[in-house]
Amino acid sequence: METFFYNQTLDHFNYRPESYATFKQKYVINSKYWGGAKESAPIFVYFGDEQPLDVQLGAVGFLSENAPHFKALQVYIEHRFYGQSIPFGTTDEAMGNDSTRGYFNSAQALADYAEVIIYLKKKLSADNSPVIVVGGSYGGMLASWFRLKYPHVALGALASSAPILYFDDITPRDAYYSVVTKDFKEVSKSCYETIRKSWSEIDRVASKPNGLSILSKKFRTCAPLDNSGDFKGVLELIYAIAAQYDSPPSYPVSQVCERIDGAYEGTGILGRIFAGFVAVAGNLTCYPFKEYYTTSKLNGWTWQVCSELVIPVGIGVNDTMFQPDPFNLKQFIESCRSLYGVSPRPHWISTYFGGHDIKLVLRRFASNIIFSNGLRDPYSSGGVLENLSDTLLAVHTVKGSHCLDILTATKTDPQWLIDQRKVEVKIIEGWFETYYADLHSLSH
Amino acid sequence: METFFYNQTLDHFNYRPESYATFKQKYVINSKYWGGAKESAPIFVYFGDEQPLDVQLGAVGFLSENAPHFKALQVYIEHRFYGQSIPFGTTDEAMGNDSTRGYFNSAQALADYAEVIIYLKKKLSADNSPVIVVGGSYGGMLASWFRLKYPHVALGALASSAPILYFDDITPRDAYYSVVTKDFKEVSKSCYETIRKSWSEIDRVASKPNGLSILSKKFRTCAPLDNSGDFKGVLELIYAIAAQYDSPPSYPVSQVCERIDGAYEGTGILGRIFAGFVAVAGNLTCYPFKEYYTTSKLNGWTWQVCSELVIPVGIGVNDTMFQPDPFNLKQFIESCRSLYGVSPRPHWISTYFGGHDIKLVLRRFASNIIFSNGLRDPYSSGGVLENLSDTLLAVHTVKGSHCLDILTATKTDPQWLIDQRKVEVKIIEGWFETYYADLHSLSH
Repeated sequence: METFFYNQTLDHFNYRPESYATFKQKYVINSKYWGGAKESAPIFVYFGDEQPLDVQLGAVGFLSENAPHFKALQVYIEHRFYGQSIPFGTTDEAMGNDSTRGYFNSAQALADYAEVIIYLKKKLSADNSPVIVVGGSYGGMLASWFRLKYPHVALGALASSAPILYFDDITPRDAYYSVVTKDFKEVSKSCYETIRKSWSEIDRVASKPNGLSILSKKFRTCAPLDNSGDFKGVLELIYAIAAQYDSPPSYPVSQVCERIDGAYEGTGILGRIFAGFVAVAGNLTCYPFKEYYTTSKLNGWTWQVCSELVIPVGIGVNDTMFQPDPFNLKQFIESCRSLYGVSPRPHWISTYFGGHDIKLVLRRFASNIIFSNGLRDPYSSGGVLENLSDTLLAVHTVKGSHCLDILTATKTDPQWLIDQRKVEVKIIEGWFETYYADLHSLSH
Repeated sequence: METFFYNQTLDHFNYRPESYATFKQKYVINSKYWGGAKESAPIFVYFGDEQPLDVQLGAVGFLSENAPHFKALQVYIEHRFYGQSIPFGTTDEAMGNDSTRGYFNSAQALADYAEVIIYLKKKLSADNSPVIVVGGSYGGMLASWFRLKYPHVALGALASSAPILYFDDITPRDAYYSVVTKDFKEVSKSCYETIRKSWSEIDRVASKPNGLSILSKKFRTCAPLDNSGDFKGVLELIYAIAAQYDSPPSYPVSQVCERIDGAYEGTGILGRIFAGFVAVAGNLTCYPFKEYYTTSKLNGWTWQVCSELVIPVGIGVNDTMFQPDPFNLKQFIESCRSLYGVSPRPHWISTYFGGHDIKLVLRRFASNIIFSNGLRDPYSSGGVLENLSDTLLAVHTVKGSHCLDILTATKTDPQWLIDQRKVEVKIIEGWFETYYADLHSLSH
C-alpha cells in the first residue's frame, strides 16, 4: 500500500480565477496483485465516502480479497473535504466558511474521481485496463452514478447499499422506519411491542413535574435531559443503527431484543428500554445524550445532507413501532438555512442523476452496475431491488444489512453472504469477458 | 409561438451563496400541433447554441416541419450568456468580468436545459411525454451529451454536425483543413491548384518594400493591411466557410471556383483569388479585413473555445492546399490566458464527456442518438460517422454540409437531403414505438 496525493482541481464546473485553485487529494494504491498494463489487467477503484479514507481502508475487503483472482490493481480514493483531502486548511476552516463549503458536493467529487483515474491510467500506460468502481452507502451511490456519468472511465460499478431512490418522492418517506420496525418484529414480537409502547410511557413520565430528571437518572445521562423529544430521537436512532447494521455474528437487533425481553420479571418498560439501549451504546458510567443529538455544522455529512443529499426520511402514522414523525421539507429547509445560510436543493439529485421511473429510463440505457442490498438494512428500501436490464442487476440477500458484501470477509460469515459475494464476482467476470472480447474484435 | 423566461440557477454545481443567484433564461414554445399530455405526445426540444435564439428560430426547420406528423410540442431554449439569456446585465458586462464569465460553460448549460425541461413537463403534467433533443454544431454536441448525461430527461437526441470527437488527440488535428482541401479539389482541380499556389505568391508580393499596400489595393481593404499572416488567415477562413456551408442551391465552393477558374485569361493568381474571395464576402466597396481577424474577448464563442471547447484545428504539412500551420497548444493556451487571465482546460471535454475509444465505450452503453453529418462539412471529420450500436446511429450524406438536415426545408432541396431527413424521422419513430411499448408494459 502506497499513499499519494493528487493535485486536484477545486471547481470543475467553473472558470473563475478561484476555480483554478487546487488541493491535495489522497489516494492509496496496492499493486501487489496487478497483472500489469501489458495484460490490460483490471483496476478496482474504491470511492471514499463520508469518512476519512483510513477508516474505510480498515473495513473494506472486497478489493483486496478479489485482487488476486482478477490480477487487479487496487486504488482507494478519498472524498474531497474528508480525512486528509481538505481543500482549505483544516476541516473546521473548510467547513466554517460559506464561500469554501460550496465546493463540497457529489458532482465535484465524481469529477475528482474521473480525473484521478484518467491520470493514473495514463501514468501506468494502462489505457485498456478496465476499471470497476466500488462503493458502499453514499459511496455506493457515487459508484453507480459514476458508471452512469463516466462510462468512458469506468466499465462497471458495484454499488453496495446505495439508496439512490431515496430522493424526492421516489420512495415513500416512511420506508426506512418501516424496515426498522419489520426487523424488530421479525426478531421478537414482544420486543417490538415493548418498544411500540415505550413512547407513551416516556411521554407519561416526562410530563410529570420532575419527569425529565427521572428519565435522566433512569438512562444514566451525563447531563440532565432538557427535553424528551431529543431523548426519544436518540432512542429512535439507536434502533435504526441496530437495524441498519444488523450483521453477523453479533446481530445487534437480536442483542437489543434479548435485553428487552430478557430483563428480570417485573422490570418496567423503561427499564427494558434502557437495557436494550445499553446493548448498542455499550456499558458506560454515563451516556452523553446531548452529544448524540447535537448536529455540528462542521460535520461534512450534515452539510451534504443540508445542501443536495436531501433524503426525506420520516415516520408515518400507524405502520411502525415509532410515534409518527413525518418528514417536513419546509422545516428541514429552514433548519439547514439557519445552520448554513443557504437552502438545500431537494430536487437536484433527481435532476442530475435521475431516479424517477428508473426501469423505464434505464432498461435500454447504460449497463454494468450491480446494486447490492441486504433487506434488513432500512436503506435497502431506497435501493434498486429489481434487475433493470441484463446488465443492470440487483443482488440482494434477505438477511443482509448495510454494505455487508464489501466489508472484510470473516470466518463467521454465513453462507448466504459468501454466496452473495460469489454472485457479484461472477457478474464482474462476465463484464470482463465481454469487454476483452470487444477490445479484441475492435482492434482487429 | 410564445416566449417565456425561466428563473434559472446560476451555478448548479456549487452551494456558495453566490451560486444561488438566478437569471432569466429565454425559451419559446409552439404548442400548435401538440397531441397533449393525456396522449403522452412527444416534446421536441431545440438546444440553442452560440447564437441568440431568435437567429436560430429563423433558420431551423426540423421541429416545425415534423411537429404535425409527431403531434409534437416544440420547445426552443436559449443557451446561457447568449441573446437575451445573460446572467449579469448586458453581454459586455457579463463577458467583461472575470468572476461572472466562469459560469459560462457547457456543463452548466446542460443542467439549465434539464431544469427547464423538467419544469415544463411538470407544469404540463406531461410526465410520460418522451423528449427528443435537437441541436446542430455545438448545439449538436450538447444534444448528444445531454442524452448521455440526462437519459432520464431526454429519450433521444438528434445531433447534427456535432464534432464531439474533435477534442484532445482523438481526431487528427489537420482533419478539418484536409476536408476543405478535398472539397475544393473535387469541385475543380485547377481552382485547387490556384489556391495552393497563391500562398507563396502572396508571400512574394508581401515581401516587397510596398508589398502590403499592393495587397491592400488588390483586395480593396478598408484599412491598409499591416501584416500578411492575418491576411492569409482571412483567406483560409473564407475557404473554410465556403466548404463548411457548401450547401444547395448556391454551393459556395463551386461559386468560388467558378470565379477563380473563370477569370478572363491572363488574370494573375492574386486577381483570381480576389475574385473567389468576393464570391463569399459579397460585393462591397471595401473589405474590412481587420474586423475579419480581430477576436473580441466579449464574444461568447471566443470565451468558450478559450475555456473548455479547445478544438485543436491545425494545418498539416503537404496534405492540404494551405501552408502548414500546425495547432500549437502551448501558444493557444498563452493567447487565451492573455485574453482572459485563465488557462483553457484542454482535457476537460474528454474527461467529462468521453470521446476516446467511443465505439468500445458506447457499443454497450447508452442508446437513441442520431449523429448526422454531411461529409463536405470539414467538421464531419470530428463527427461520429459509423454506427456505434443498433440505436447509436450515424446518418451521413456524401454531398451534405454543416447542419443541413435540421435547417428549414426548401423546394430546391436535392433528393439526398430529403432522404436523409426521412431516415432520421424513421429512426425517431422507432424510438417512440419502443418507448410507448415499454411504457405500456411497465404500467401493467
